[in-house]
Amino acid sequence: MAAMNGSGVDLRSKFLKVYAVLKSELLEDPAFEFTDDSRQWIDRMLDYNVPGGKLNRGLSVIDSFKYLKEGKELTEEEILLASVLGWCIEWLQAYFLVLDDIMDNSHTRRGQPCWFRVPKVGMIAVNDGLLLRNHIPRILKKHFKPKPYYVDLVDLFNEVEFQTASGQMIDLITTIEGEKDLSKYSLSLHRRIVQYKTAYYSFYLPVACALLLAGEKLESHVNVKNILVDMGIYFQVQDDYLDCFGDPEKIGKIGTDIEDFKCSWLVVKALELCNAGQKKVLSDHYGKDNPEDVAKVKALYNELNLQGVFADYEASTYEKLITSIESHPSKAVQALLKSFLAKIYKRQK
Amino acid sequence: MAAMNGSGVDLRSKFLKVYAVLKSELLEDPAFEFTDDSRQWIDRMLDYNVPGGKLNRGLSVIDSFKYLKEGKELTEEEILLASVLGWCIEWLQAYFLVLDDIMDNSHTRRGQPCWFRVPKVGMIAVNDGLLLRNHIPRILKKHFKPKPYYVDLVDLFNEVEFQTASGQMIDLITTIEGEKDLSKYSLSLHRRIVQYKTAYYSFYLPVACALLLAGEKLESHVNVKNILVDMGIYFQVQDDYLDCFGDPEKIGKIGTDIEDFKCSWLVVKALELCNAGQKKVLSDHYGKDNPEDVAKVKALYNELNLQGVFADYEASTYEKLITSIESHPSKAVQALLKSFLAKIYKRQK
Repeated sequence: MAAMNGSGVDLRSKFLKVYAVLKSELLEDPAFEFTDDSRQWIDRMLDYNVPGGKLNRGLSVIDSFKYLKEGKELTEEEILLASVLGWCIEWLQAYFLVLDDIMDNSHTRRGQPCWFRVPKVGMIAVNDGLLLRNHIPRILKKHFKPKPYYVDLVDLFNEVEFQTASGQMIDLITTIEGEKDLSKYSLSLHRRIVQYKTAYYSFYLPVACALLLAGEKLESHVNVKNILVDMGIYFQVQDDYLDCFGDPEKIGKIGTDIEDFKCSWLVVKALELCNAGQKKVLSDHYGKDNPEDVAKVKALYNELNLQGVFADYEASTYEKLITSIESHPSKAVQALLKSFLAKIYKRQK
Repeated sequence: MAAMNGSGVDLRSKFLKVYAVLKSELLEDPAFEFTDDSRQWIDRMLDYNVPGGKLNRGLSVIDSFKYLKEGKELTEEEILLASVLGWCIEWLQAYFLVLDDIMDNSHTRRGQPCWFRVPKVGMIAVNDGLLLRNHIPRILKKHFKPKPYYVDLVDLFNEVEFQTASGQMIDLITTIEGEKDLSKYSLSLHRRIVQYKTAYYSFYLPVACALLLAGEKLESHVNVKNILVDMGIYFQVQDDYLDCFGDPEKIGKIGTDIEDFKCSWLVVKALELCNAGQKKVLSDHYGKDNPEDVAKVKALYNELNLQGVFADYEASTYEKLITSIESHPSKAVQALLKSFLAKIYKRQK
């Protein structure tokens, strides 16, 4: 989500200072009697897994809150609270990544070995993932317990975590090893996976946090939620597109969705548009870790003009999103949503 | 915890009916759009992992609540609510067991293969563990959202889960493979591990649930908490003792704490009581998966009369617990705590 970062250097360094505060609070949590070894373990585990990402989700809580305050300068207290919630999202992300890497048997993450591959960590990383997840309610309790919206915050994080883990479940069970079966792949399945696995926590959650902070009730903002979820789906479709057609220099990695038999938007579109002969090409070559198979799938994608199909999808999605956004009664919310959209529209990385 | 079950057959079958209700609610949760495959997956995963234990922790919520109602008959509604909280504890237990078995690379659990060893499950079990954990706030929200104590329930489950995962952490990092170092083992470390890893969720949590259900504030019951945590520590010391000195026929397994280099109460006591020569026996033979090594450790335990040391510990712990219980102002709470103690005192399984 590199393209989503519109925040300045100053905000980022302020934000990182809040990480240091939260970490030291967790290392002194009175609900547990740390040993020296265990305190050191958590300290290192947090530094390794939490602050090393692009921080877009976390920073976007502060950005969103600024829009909701309609240009009024935020107080130091408000910046702190928004930063704390931003970090809770980064903690949530770290928890998912630590455990996803174990499930996917991955090797590297953010340019370093995955946490479970660090010497002496191994399967202790499973419990570290749980601890990252458990830190979120500790942080929320410490900073928000007296607030009238405390229970809404706790419910929000629980619901979004549930949705993310549920999306991850359908992703995992549709790609079980040894059952490579394209007949299960459809646009509807793809939408479900990306909506639940990515859109809620990456797009809805930061704005929902800002809304609660601004004293809003989430039930009054179902429209905002729907728009953000649609944006999250669009974002993931771009991700799927860039995995195959993006510039590896810009996106920072070489895509392997074809080799990995991923339920990508591209294969789902290909299945929708192909004739019987083309379908056979997909069945024979999709999901094989071999350059010749991959080349045949890519050739088919070109034959079906998936670049053009994607361009049409992007244009019409943009139009629909703008129309939905402009029908929202609040100009501040419109500006917030447009700023999210501007960060991702036609992104190349 | 077989010895803890004092509930009748009728209560147990009523309790199991509530499981069926909770499962079908989760399979229709409106926060997620299930596919047929994913609904089936969860159905099977829940049946495999949640209801197959002894259910002592879950049933003890209902038992505890009865004591707090001082003999007044529970309404159907009250039985339902107490059962729902009991199941939340069973869900929490299932979540820990699924993930612990992965971390420990275990083979069987409750007489069947561990969930991650079931064909086609594998590392998907990590995500299933997270889903089990995520079901708890879903269940709490569905059944308790309008209650004045809703937020206290959510906070309670979060805090106890944090404590359990933290206890698991010190257990894991003190037994890292390849660093078998007895000098780290002490009574204080042992107490910390068992207090956090076992006592809070097995002993305090069921009673805390019943207290909230009875309209009590947990802050007013710090004494009850301390007594239950002490009982939980005593329970785990018994577990450590029975692992070596219990009758395998009665406890239903052959203990392997010595082979596994566990921070058991027995080894900690042995380290406390031994002379330099005896200490060398421990360093040379503890934590080796070889019958001759194990026999040497057991011979040392007998030389140090650990059976007598344990009998003294049990007698004095019982006395102290009874004294603490009888200093509690409420007769109902006294009766509740004594019933917990009676279930475990001098247990042989």
